[in-house]
Amino acid sequence: MLNFSYWNPTRIIFGKESIADVGQEAAKWGKRVLFHFGGGSIKANGVYDAVTNSLKEAGLEVVYLGGVVPNPHLSLVRQGIALCKKEKIDLVLAVGGGSVIDSAKAIAFGTKLQGNEDVWNDYFMRAQYDIQDALPVGVVLTIPAAGSESSTASVITDEKEGLKRAINSETVIPKFAVMDPETNYSLPNYQTACGATDILAHLQERYFTMVGGNDLSDRLLESCMRNIIANAPLALKNPSEYVYRAELMWTGTIAHNNLLDRGRLGDWATHDIEHELSALYDIAHGAGLAILFPAWMKYVYKDNIDRFVQYAIRVWDVSLPLEDKDSIVEEAITRLQNFYRRIGMPTSLTEVKIGKNKLRFMAEKALFGERTHLGNFKKLYVDDVEKIYHLAL
Amino acid sequence: MLNFSYWNPTRIIFGKESIADVGQEAAKWGKRVLFHFGGGSIKANGVYDAVTNSLKEAGLEVVYLGGVVPNPHLSLVRQGIALCKKEKIDLVLAVGGGSVIDSAKAIAFGTKLQGNEDVWNDYFMRAQYDIQDALPVGVVLTIPAAGSESSTASVITDEKEGLKRAINSETVIPKFAVMDPETNYSLPNYQTACGATDILAHLQERYFTMVGGNDLSDRLLESCMRNIIANAPLALKNPSEYVYRAELMWTGTIAHNNLLDRGRLGDWATHDIEHELSALYDIAHGAGLAILFPAWMKYVYKDNIDRFVQYAIRVWDVSLPLEDKDSIVEEAITRLQNFYRRIGMPTSLTEVKIGKNKLRFMAEKALFGERTHLGNFKKLYVDDVEKIYHLAL
Repeated sequence: MLNFSYWNPTRIIFGKESIADVGQEAAKWGKRVLFHFGGGSIKANGVYDAVTNSLKEAGLEVVYLGGVVPNPHLSLVRQGIALCKKEKIDLVLAVGGGSVIDSAKAIAFGTKLQGNEDVWNDYFMRAQYDIQDALPVGVVLTIPAAGSESSTASVITDEKEGLKRAINSETVIPKFAVMDPETNYSLPNYQTACGATDILAHLQERYFTMVGGNDLSDRLLESCMRNIIANAPLALKNPSEYVYRAELMWTGTIAHNNLLDRGRLGDWATHDIEHELSALYDIAHGAGLAILFPAWMKYVYKDNIDRFVQYAIRVWDVSLPLEDKDSIVEEAITRLQNFYRRIGMPTSLTEVKIGKNKLRFMAEKALFGERTHLGNFKKLYVDDVEKIYHLAL
Repeated sequence: MLNFSYWNPTRIIFGKESIADVGQEAAKWGKRVLFHFGGGSIKANGVYDAVTNSLKEAGLEVVYLGGVVPNPHLSLVRQGIALCKKEKIDLVLAVGGGSVIDSAKAIAFGTKLQGNEDVWNDYFMRAQYDIQDALPVGVVLTIPAAGSESSTASVITDEKEGLKRAINSETVIPKFAVMDPETNYSLPNYQTACGATDILAHLQERYFTMVGGNDLSDRLLESCMRNIIANAPLALKNPSEYVYRAELMWTGTIAHNNLLDRGRLGDWATHDIEHELSALYDIAHGAGLAILFPAWMKYVYKDNIDRFVQYAIRVWDVSLPLEDKDSIVEEAITRLQNFYRRIGMPTSLTEVKIGKNKLRFMAEKALFGERTHLGNFKKLYVDDVEKIYHLAL
């Protein structure tokens, strides 16, 4: 177990009709609120009006900025920063899923940058940076997936260059997150499944580590993985059943609030490899992860096979003779792929009509800039990343 | 799953030589520190000097108040409050285990009380209260057990009346907790075992609930329980092995920072019933819990036998025909008692030379004051509590 620190001050307000509390929470952070959102879904399901009413009842002044798309765009972040400065915004309130929250976080610290500093060139594109300050961010979560509602991370895409990059900073951890599972009833099944896949990926990225002596984190991660594997198919079958929505939503938060990887190094290569895919092609982040995670596993598992055997036994109940570890791991990967299929995810690039011709290009882009390698379980370079894309064909 | 809120802002600084960071953390909260501690153990193992040096290096002014005993006394709390007022203390730093932290929390909010308000009569003895303010509390944890390092709770004993009572408030959640597992190497095995028993009890109190639809919390609690059951005997066998100490210490925090019972009601009757025991007799809280938890289980399990069957299967690997649920539960209770014996805990009142004569008296005291009943899994009244004491003979 490595030395670690842990601090997560997001106040979670979870449950039915919890949106009524958002005004009161937001009012703790100032008077003028940027209401940041995506498209029309929150207008259709009543969230837009419910949040607006709660903010107005609390006497807050609201400025709206919609238009966040999946793999949120740098151009809208820049627009948001200009708007926050002009409107003297006190709090950035993200109403939506991970894309909206990530966009809000980038706007929040971008607004506080001094002098000529640029949110993209001086932060997202840098391997080293130190974010000093940010406007407070609040969240009304409507899609469980990214875990961004209580995380340090923001992932933004420079849509002109097709580059997707992340920052991490304590300054952008949301101050509060209002989470009503009933707002998820209207999610399309495909989006629910993409969310579940992303949550499972966050858990797997943390599970596959070379750091030993970390029994508690292993067990907690296994618990969360089993929870997703059990509850995602039930949520898809019964989209308006509260309990399954609540499980996915709460597990999505726990999976990514950094509690579950204290004392170890996660891997995160699969996320980085996927980011190139969804930056270039019109594919959901979750779908890309379902395609790439098994390929990554096949490519790396021999580097620490016992870790994959433990995963096979404890998460997938694989019960084969321990003398044949390769078969145990292969069986676990098969079960993972069967799970993805069961919830309607693609499991190959071919299936989503992506061919061979840009694999080398994406591998090179994944290592573009100041990045020396991807991953921690096994360090990956351009050739490795290309091979993983090939395994996913 | 019930609606819930969750907020836990304690900054955890965990690992080898982490005590060197305490001065820097403490300095964020002011200049004048009350260094609150127990007896001589922290002087013997070097923690006293290491903390003092770090505080002095950070330029802080330190006032010492030692003498905290297990089941910490109200009289020392009153003394601490007077000292904090006189010395204009900015931060109460608890250096020790749960008793020291609980005493520090009581001093911290007691110092901020206005007018004629009394820390005991107007707060600890009340069923309803609202703590408005407290001095910041910091922690250097040296005994994993109580989980007080990031909890809302403080348990204090009025040693003259023999009454032990708790308060809960967000205002007393420590601002930071420095946790170096190496400081636990010098703990006597009995104290380590008492700590492990207390941690397991915190998990069990949360597990046995009547609230359904809470799969994630169930699984996380099971993970933590299995972690304690696996690591406690190893820590006792290898007291200076870092990894087992680290597991117990980190699990002790997670077990009681309230993350694991969101969306449900814990029970807590066993803790309340035990508090009467250790308030009256010279018995460690952990030892009292080992004696009483199996008795409580036997008394209540039929009220929701499936919950106990799940516990038996998932925590204790009981594999008996599901048609005989009583035998499954009995087997789990037997395994729990065997675990307690293995780590050197007593499992009956007789074993610690406590007879029948004060059981009714303790049962009446447990329901003294504004309490109407104990527990949530099954509501317990004076006669029930007396029967549980009898089952523990």
